[in-house]
Amino acid sequence: MMNEIGKCAKIASRRLARANTDQKNQVLTMIADELIAQRELILRENVKDVEAATEAGLAPALIDRLTLNPSRLNGVAADVRRVASLPDPVGEQFDHATLSNGLKLHKQRVPLGVLGVIYESRPNVTIDVTALAIKTGNVAILRGGSETLNTNRALINVVHRALETNQLPVNAIQFVDDSDRARVTELLALHDYVDVIIPRGGAALHKFCRENSRITVITGGIGICHLFVDESADLEKAIEVIHNAKTQRPSVCNALDVVLVHRAVAAEFLPRVVARLAADGVTFRAEPRALSNIQPLTSNIQLASETDFDTEWLSLVLSLKVVDDLDEAMDHIAQHSTAHSDGILTRDTDQANRFIAEVDSAAVYVNASTRFTDGGEFGLGAEVAVSTQRLHARGPMGLRELTTYKWVGVGDYLIRK
Amino acid sequence: MMNEIGKCAKIASRRLARANTDQKNQVLTMIADELIAQRELILRENVKDVEAATEAGLAPALIDRLTLNPSRLNGVAADVRRVASLPDPVGEQFDHATLSNGLKLHKQRVPLGVLGVIYESRPNVTIDVTALAIKTGNVAILRGGSETLNTNRALINVVHRALETNQLPVNAIQFVDDSDRARVTELLALHDYVDVIIPRGGAALHKFCRENSRITVITGGIGICHLFVDESADLEKAIEVIHNAKTQRPSVCNALDVVLVHRAVAAEFLPRVVARLAADGVTFRAEPRALSNIQPLTSNIQLASETDFDTEWLSLVLSLKVVDDLDEAMDHIAQHSTAHSDGILTRDTDQANRFIAEVDSAAVYVNASTRFTDGGEFGLGAEVAVSTQRLHARGPMGLRELTTYKWVGVGDYLIRK
Repeated sequence: MMNEIGKCAKIASRRLARANTDQKNQVLTMIADELIAQRELILRENVKDVEAATEAGLAPALIDRLTLNPSRLNGVAADVRRVASLPDPVGEQFDHATLSNGLKLHKQRVPLGVLGVIYESRPNVTIDVTALAIKTGNVAILRGGSETLNTNRALINVVHRALETNQLPVNAIQFVDDSDRARVTELLALHDYVDVIIPRGGAALHKFCRENSRITVITGGIGICHLFVDESADLEKAIEVIHNAKTQRPSVCNALDVVLVHRAVAAEFLPRVVARLAADGVTFRAEPRALSNIQPLTSNIQLASETDFDTEWLSLVLSLKVVDDLDEAMDHIAQHSTAHSDGILTRDTDQANRFIAEVDSAAVYVNASTRFTDGGEFGLGAEVAVSTQRLHARGPMGLRELTTYKWVGVGDYLIRK
Repeated sequence: MMNEIGKCAKIASRRLARANTDQKNQVLTMIADELIAQRELILRENVKDVEAATEAGLAPALIDRLTLNPSRLNGVAADVRRVASLPDPVGEQFDHATLSNGLKLHKQRVPLGVLGVIYESRPNVTIDVTALAIKTGNVAILRGGSETLNTNRALINVVHRALETNQLPVNAIQFVDDSDRARVTELLALHDYVDVIIPRGGAALHKFCRENSRITVITGGIGICHLFVDESADLEKAIEVIHNAKTQRPSVCNALDVVLVHRAVAAEFLPRVVARLAADGVTFRAEPRALSNIQPLTSNIQLASETDFDTEWLSLVLSLKVVDDLDEAMDHIAQHSTAHSDGILTRDTDQANRFIAEVDSAAVYVNASTRFTDGGEFGLGAEVAVSTQRLHARGPMGLRELTTYKWVGVGDYLIRK
């Protein structure tokens, strides 16, 4: 079954790559329209999934994630329209040159090809990924969560109708309509047909994909994020940046996990930052030197265990550590960071420049919250993933990062000397 | 052993990434100087390898590839000086923007990290890769062929002395001094330390790497290359382009393998192109329709077998096929090309533009020889590999393609709203 899906994807890929921008945008607009027009049907199918999940005793957070309602569906449709409004990267020409050998050369953006996307309960991912894939001329094989099967079927129907109406192959977006987990392993083995695997889920899913596929896996979305408070930092303002990075949305990958404080300001800074964040429900894991600076101790402050500096909290917990200087801070980051988002708070330009030069994370900040690492905040208009791998793309991946390029050389019956 | 090498590479990587351009160029200059100064010693060690290979009965072509002489060593040293003279991509800043959220954002080029390079007999690869790696701030783990062990030891000594003299870690370039093939498999398993695997060798080596590693493998260097002679082509000039693409250096990946001829010009064109190339020793594999156009038939013209259109010849053999039109030509290319280098010979701009838009190979040509797909010819100054994969880089990979980027965001204690 999966092999057949792979073959069909490859065939559809050649056709979709040639679709022009208008044609692709028409598909997206029709999907958005139909999501609203078919609202009742989609929500009815979604109720089936929600009821089954409730019966099966799934956690309320999970059930919430798979639940659609009119307002959420409106949001999904609006996102599709936004993607339609973005510039099409495919066909863009760049790096033009006329070489001394006479060749007129340039690069031209083309789709990556076939995306394999593996995700969990959220049905909005089905439409999000569909919109990004179609816009960039990529075909996609989608493997959603088994608990969302009825909803996804209804959504994929909408997608297929829009493709068909606009004379594009329905196999441009294929949905693996089989909740057997063996299909995931088979999808990961389709290296003859699939160009890249995009897992949308937690660390375990990423690890499973990497360990079971020869296809390039876009690894990302895991952030153990640091802010270093240098001795020259404006402490008042530093507290607000840390407060924002930790509390604005603690469940996401760019939320702050660790604060490193220069020993020269630890005694003054730590009690103040703890007081400010504790008031909003944050609890703390402090190594001994940090702990000794926090008075009075409360039940919300614990001695950090060995693994606390290698933990992505995804909740209102913050690790605290005192360091001797910038070097110790950067050593700690090199050892413990997932290379997602790390920053320095300082008034010293030399220290800031050293931090920028020497900390090698996907996003490096000076006097800014780690929460900015995001396709929307970075002005990309859309986001497929936040890559923490090193090849192809790092950090937020937008439409352009779903493309590659080919070289185009034009001559007048030119031969190589 | 390999795990230790991986750890040491990761540590050296942080240090080498911070080396400035002057420091890196000084290392390269010293390597070039010492290759000349130590010439006698290096050639003496090389003689040992050549003698052992002769005794072991290795093929003359293989022995030639591993043989150094004063002129070849001069060439290797000159290549190192040329890499030193190229601009350093590391630290380059691009895509500057000040966003509406207040963040000043740009991208900054950084080394890929740790390269794992697996190659065969040619000792010049040891120095080539070393020069490219050091220039781009990348650390490398080199696994050369067992038949070149003595030569490689002498070369690596030169490299290590140059690193040490210039206060850079000798572990920046580590050589796996053990010809047990198990070390290759262990290198491929170092996904915690190695960022990319670069195989330098034939299709079998590439396949082995891809099948035995979770690390991204730069696949490339396999080219089944096509030229399509359209009905509007200038036939006289087309013959010369085909002659160049096939005969100028038949043993390399960008040499021509297949000529597709529009049926409207097949009768006129095929006898002429066959006569011209046969005079230089080319033999032909023609499908029936092509064959019917070639008169008189000689012993150098065979009926093409089923696999002849899926074969990279690497020698003076050329496959010939007549097609009905551009669509059939592009269908054939889509099915049989390795997406390395494919071109059209035509006077019709519309046909040329369709070919450019719809043929998705790393390099697509109009009225030019496929032999141009090369880092030097493309003006990159150096070449690590010619990628036929889709992610990260396609076609000739120069210094820039050995780097990635990080995002740098600067604010004034900026928080996300």
